[in-house]
Amino acid sequence: MIVRSGTTLWRALRSDWPALLYFLALALLAEFIYEYTHMEHTALPLLPLSVLITAMSIFLGFQVNQCYERWWEARRLWGQLVNVSRSFGRQVTTLLTPRRIAAITDEAQAVALQRELIHRQIAYANALRIGLRSGGVGEEGWRILKDWLDDDEIEHLQHARNVPTQLIQRQAQRLAEVVGTDWAEQQILLQIDDSLNLCYDIQGGCERIKRTAFPDRFRFHTHAFVWLVASLIPFSLIQTDQRFDAVAIVMETLLAFVFVTIERLGSELRDPFENHVNDTPMSALCRTIEIDLRQQLGESGVPAPPEPVKGVLM
Amino acid sequence: MIVRSGTTLWRALRSDWPALLYFLALALLAEFIYEYTHMEHTALPLLPLSVLITAMSIFLGFQVNQCYERWWEARRLWGQLVNVSRSFGRQVTTLLTPRRIAAITDEAQAVALQRELIHRQIAYANALRIGLRSGGVGEEGWRILKDWLDDDEIEHLQHARNVPTQLIQRQAQRLAEVVGTDWAEQQILLQIDDSLNLCYDIQGGCERIKRTAFPDRFRFHTHAFVWLVASLIPFSLIQTDQRFDAVAIVMETLLAFVFVTIERLGSELRDPFENHVNDTPMSALCRTIEIDLRQQLGESGVPAPPEPVKGVLM
Amino acid sequence: MIVRSGTTLWRALRSDWPALLYFLALALLAEFIYEYTHMEHTALPLLPLSVLITAMSIFLGFQVNQCYERWWEARRLWGQLVNVSRSFGRQVTTLLTPRRIAAITDEAQAVALQRELIHRQIAYANALRIGLRSGGVGEEGWRILKDWLDDDEIEHLQHARNVPTQLIQRQAQRLAEVVGTDWAEQQILLQIDDSLNLCYDIQGGCERIKRTAFPDRFRFHTHAFVWLVASLIPFSLIQTDQRFDAVAIVMETLLAFVFVTIERLGSELRDPFENHVNDTPMSALCRTIEIDLRQQLGESGVPAPPEPVKGVLM
Amino acid sequence: MIVRSGTTLWRALRSDWPALLYFLALALLAEFIYEYTHMEHTALPLLPLSVLITAMSIFLGFQVNQCYERWWEARRLWGQLVNVSRSFGRQVTTLLTPRRIAAITDEAQAVALQRELIHRQIAYANALRIGLRSGGVGEEGWRILKDWLDDDEIEHLQHARNVPTQLIQRQAQRLAEVVGTDWAEQQILLQIDDSLNLCYDIQGGCERIKRTAFPDRFRFHTHAFVWLVASLIPFSLIQTDQRFDAVAIVMETLLAFVFVTIERLGSELRDPFENHVNDTPMSALCRTIEIDLRQQLGESGVPAPPEPVKGVLM
Amino acid sequence: MIVRSGTTLWRALRSDWPALLYFLALALLAEFIYEYTHMEHTALPLLPLSVLITAMSIFLGFQVNQCYERWWEARRLWGQLVNVSRSFGRQVTTLLTPRRIAAITDEAQAVALQRELIHRQIAYANALRIGLRSGGVGEEGWRILKDWLDDDEIEHLQHARNVPTQLIQRQAQRLAEVVGTDWAEQQILLQIDDSLNLCYDIQGGCERIKRTAFPDRFRFHTHAFVWLVASLIPFSLIQTDQRFDAVAIVMETLLAFVFVTIERLGSELRDPFENHVNDTPMSALCRTIEIDLRQQLGESGVPAPPEPVKGVLM
Repeated sequence: MIVRSGTTLWRALRSDWPALLYFLALALLAEFIYEYTHMEHTALPLLPLSVLITAMSIFLGFQVNQCYERWWEARRLWGQLVNVSRSFGRQVTTLLTPRRIAAITDEAQAVALQRELIHRQIAYANALRIGLRSGGVGEEGWRILKDWLDDDEIEHLQHARNVPTQLIQRQAQRLAEVVGTDWAEQQILLQIDDSLNLCYDIQGGCERIKRTAFPDRFRFHTHAFVWLVASLIPFSLIQTDQRFDAVAIVMETLLAFVFVTIERLGSELRDPFENHVNDTPMSALCRTIEIDLRQQLGESGVPAPPEPVKGVLM
Repeated sequence: MIVRSGTTLWRALRSDWPALLYFLALALLAEFIYEYTHMEHTALPLLPLSVLITAMSIFLGFQVNQCYERWWEARRLWGQLVNVSRSFGRQVTTLLTPRRIAAITDEAQAVALQRELIHRQIAYANALRIGLRSGGVGEEGWRILKDWLDDDEIEHLQHARNVPTQLIQRQAQRLAEVVGTDWAEQQILLQIDDSLNLCYDIQGGCERIKRTAFPDRFRFHTHAFVWLVASLIPFSLIQTDQRFDAVAIVMETLLAFVFVTIERLGSELRDPFENHVNDTPMSALCRTIEIDLRQQLGESGVPAPPEPVKGVLM
Repeated sequence: MIVRSGTTLWRALRSDWPALLYFLALALLAEFIYEYTHMEHTALPLLPLSVLITAMSIFLGFQVNQCYERWWEARRLWGQLVNVSRSFGRQVTTLLTPRRIAAITDEAQAVALQRELIHRQIAYANALRIGLRSGGVGEEGWRILKDWLDDDEIEHLQHARNVPTQLIQRQAQRLAEVVGTDWAEQQILLQIDDSLNLCYDIQGGCERIKRTAFPDRFRFHTHAFVWLVASLIPFSLIQTDQRFDAVAIVMETLLAFVFVTIERLGSELRDPFENHVNDTPMSALCRTIEIDLRQQLGESGVPAPPEPVKGVLM
Repeated sequence: MIVRSGTTLWRALRSDWPALLYFLALALLAEFIYEYTHMEHTALPLLPLSVLITAMSIFLGFQVNQCYERWWEARRLWGQLVNVSRSFGRQVTTLLTPRRIAAITDEAQAVALQRELIHRQIAYANALRIGLRSGGVGEEGWRILKDWLDDDEIEHLQHARNVPTQLIQRQAQRLAEVVGTDWAEQQILLQIDDSLNLCYDIQGGCERIKRTAFPDRFRFHTHAFVWLVASLIPFSLIQTDQRFDAVAIVMETLLAFVFVTIERLGSELRDPFENHVNDTPMSALCRTIEIDLRQQLGESGVPAPPEPVKGVLM
Repeated sequence: MIVRSGTTLWRALRSDWPALLYFLALALLAEFIYEYTHMEHTALPLLPLSVLITAMSIFLGFQVNQCYERWWEARRLWGQLVNVSRSFGRQVTTLLTPRRIAAITDEAQAVALQRELIHRQIAYANALRIGLRSGGVGEEGWRILKDWLDDDEIEHLQHARNVPTQLIQRQAQRLAEVVGTDWAEQQILLQIDDSLNLCYDIQGGCERIKRTAFPDRFRFHTHAFVWLVASLIPFSLIQTDQRFDAVAIVMETLLAFVFVTIERLGSELRDPFENHVNDTPMSALCRTIEIDLRQQLGESGVPAPPEPVKGVLM
């Protein structure tokens, strides 16, 4: 995610110059053709272009809005993961105590259990992030998870087709082992069960955005049409003037550039889990979860929140 | 569902060439008429066309957005079915144990019960998918369901008007038979009952999208108007030029084609349960459910996730 | 509701011909005036018309989208009624059993109670439908309700200002009579109470759409402006041509017709509970509820789902 | 709220004639200036106007849609208040009975308690309505509340900064007094507690719409720009014609009028709790609550639903 | 937040005059260039400008609507915080009583506990507000929190990375300490636990809006393009007239000004937690929470609601 006001003119130009150059070259080419060949009758009509752009604006408005929706929903889902993790941490630390759970005999055991569950929740957030960014847990991923899980569990997880799903399954198994069967205890189990349901809902939402492409024919045709139409702009505008005209060239380049920029900015938001600068800042949110949950446990030495690097927070 | 970047120029042309050809022919026809008959006074005015296209853009913008909403809601509902199935699987495997349910006397019986319930949930997802795709469970459908249900149940279901509804009814009956009446046990029943409610909500949402057509007069008039207006385009554009003009012909064809393409792409998303390439990938999601729930049971030998075939995932 | 592809050219023309004829006559009139009176200076300017249509498109886009929202929300609410009825049926048939409820002494009594509650739920759906369609339960309505309720209840309901509200009230009273006061039983009561809450939410949503008109000044002005502007179109377009011109007449008629059709199609969706062809198919959904709930009871001889009549499902 | 089809031509003209007259006068003035002073070179260009109107349509489309959202959300919230009141009435009448609550010793006491709680709920709806319409409970307001509350409570409420908040607080206190502490009883208390939460949610939503103005700089600039631009229209259109032209004058007046009407209709929906004809019909909905809840109590002599007065329902 | 009708012409001009002056100067410059240099051939074409503005309107419509959504969601979240705080206050004052909680031995102890919990909830709202406005709790912030929390807790909080998160954690700990472990008591704990979950959800939503910038490349390009295009307007419009023309200068200035104003008004709503006049009125809402919760406690001497200062409520 690019942080607020993280886009400078310099950063913008760095990614935009090829398009700017392309349209400038095209404008000069059009100018040259009309000026030196006197083929002014070939000039494309401007009014059809205006009609064409009205038609294109349906495509573009649709794409920009729906891509933004995907991007914002991804961020909302991860925000909810922070919320439910904090709630889970609060429930675990205040309800799973020797006083309320018979199987927990002393404070040390309570802390060990709370720590295990909370560390697994942190592992869950990280496993979800890694899976979304790279499609599976790789070498690097397992190294991160090892910080939060013991070796047996890591080994067992390596057989899982979907690591986050089985991590939540493991949370539920551990809770069912510890919490007793009389009614007062069991209600605590069912209350936390609701939080686990919510984790699956969030995870499913992320997987939906990751695995369901924005309707691909829309993507293809919007992209193709925008570049085709933008490339026709210089040939349409030039017709109004038969001499070399610097201002018209600037104007044509600007118009074509505005047009393709809408398409590009929209498509940059389309897939928010792809390791791009516009990604949901999942690493930062995993860190937020880690900090808050470890402070709920009362642990000290929690890490600092991550800083944006060159205006980008991942 | 067409996977990300599954649309190539080749695939696009394969479905688009009849429209392209039609508009090219029309443009040549218009050129011919004006050039050889000198009937330039019949030329349709361009400005009215531009007004007409403004009016049409309300129709098209509405259709594109609402069809996409239907398509995306269908995907969201199936995503929720994955979520609730995982939660159901987790609840069944961790709560229906000898320790918590008196009627379950040993581990083997627990596993048998869990297996039955989870296999029925997999059957439920498949029955819903089959019903949405083909309107009813056919020969092929019963064959698939037989993998997950025993013969008695299959026979009983064959009298059901709505198979998925009665499958969930059966889940509830089985749970009510097994789970005891004292309060601690019964609360587990009621907790799982909430998950069954959610299944009905999802199923009802899918049936709504399947059975409620997009307002049909909108569909008809949008389609009819778009083709009528697009067919008028060559006759309007040609007027600005009285000689054979290759560029104008390309431009007219492009404009008409952009116009009908918006309508077509929108309408492709309109009905997401019809066995088209743009369908919700229900087969793949049923497989996801199967994999995750069977791994929750601890079963080995789960199948691999399905691969897209020629860029399409069903 | 018009079923998918239920709109044929014939059906469309049957409702559209008066508007088509009116605009054709107007176009001929405009042609006649300009041609025979040589008053071409009175010709309305085309460009103002185009500006006017830009302004109108805000009105029309707003109306089309919001009317569709009302129509789709009505359908969603009735879909939810199907869902909650199925859940209610499942809860009643699996939880109100001799095993769980002390006051139910044998199977026969259980079946009688379940049947009474489920039949009242079917009556509820029908009473809601009848009330929405005709504003109150008439002769015909009471005849339908008599199939599901006994005579005492019918008589008592005849004093109710709002029949569906009091039917749900009756469901709650009956449940409170039967279900005991110890905790295990009472929780079943409270679980079903949640389903009854949902019924009130759905009913209230339907009453909101029924009783709250779409902002009426918008309706009035949109309708008035559209017809005024469409009627000015022939007088604006004709100006570009001073001889009899069949093509222009077709074009003018088409443009005016497209314009008023947007307004008409939107307004047809505005009020979905008025016994029109675009109504929410409440009769069909009541039948769906009847079929599924009676199959949950294990009753045989359930009716067949209703078929669309001439492409319309009510 | 104006009822369906409550807007007649007459009613529309009654509120619209000043604007119509103003633009007619402006059109005549423009005509006069151009005709008699021969200053046709001052004529404003029409095309810039068209560009200006494109820009304005973003302002107007935004305002119309968001004002409607506010209006419709207000209606939805009051619809929810009806729903939750019916549910509260049903819970109170069926659960707070001698059989379930030990502190209620006989039927008469039950009825007295149910009556008190239901009358307070009716008072709550009325207090909310009065507060939203007049900003506080005035003389008139207290007179209405006295029908439903006893004098002690009225006196106590007069110290409350927010009367509806403290009425719900009082409901909770009374319930906590009556309902016992053993688990079966207390669960009834907590079930009703959820309904009270919902009341606060609805009330908070209404207060949000009442107290949070639509972004005021948008309101100001949209209004100012629309009237400025509409006032420029006659001076732009007249230029196409240099003689007295009745048709052009009608057209100019119409265009300017359409333009300001969009702004006006939108802004009429902006604040739905201000005692205007477009208000949420809170008085009628309070009456609906009164009728339904008193019929749940079994009271006779309930009032009739209110009738619209001159096409307006408050 | 600017209150209803808080924008006067004077206030509007005070923030708008630099833009107005800039465009007036530009219009005069354009006039001067064309008039005195006779370079009319350099005149930019008007029609391309109109096409450019169509393209820009996608950018602007998108920005205006999405920024408003952020602003309105922020207000909705804070409205929910008011609702949940009132519900929390009601639950604490009516359920945590000597009668229901064994550990509370007398009325005085109950009042002390209720007061502590409610004061901490007021502290929570204030801590959230301070954190959102200034990024952390500063000197000033701790001074405010000291009114509601005792010194030990303040000291402990100073180690918290996220103060509001740890305040809710503390609420849960205190409740878990006081409320007993038998089932009737514990259910009260779990009921209030749901309200604490809601607090985390609201807080997470606010943090999401605060920390996730509106896609920054959109912000940058919309701003840059709008000012570039608006600056080209005078040079495009002037071409239609070769003499000094006061009306045209006014018109050009107006058009450019309308255009940049849309962008500015939208961007003013983009970030609602930045201590601007368009901020969510968090101070006022904290005061509302303080008043209502202290009146629920029965405290007297509550402060008055805050008044807007110069038409702005913070």
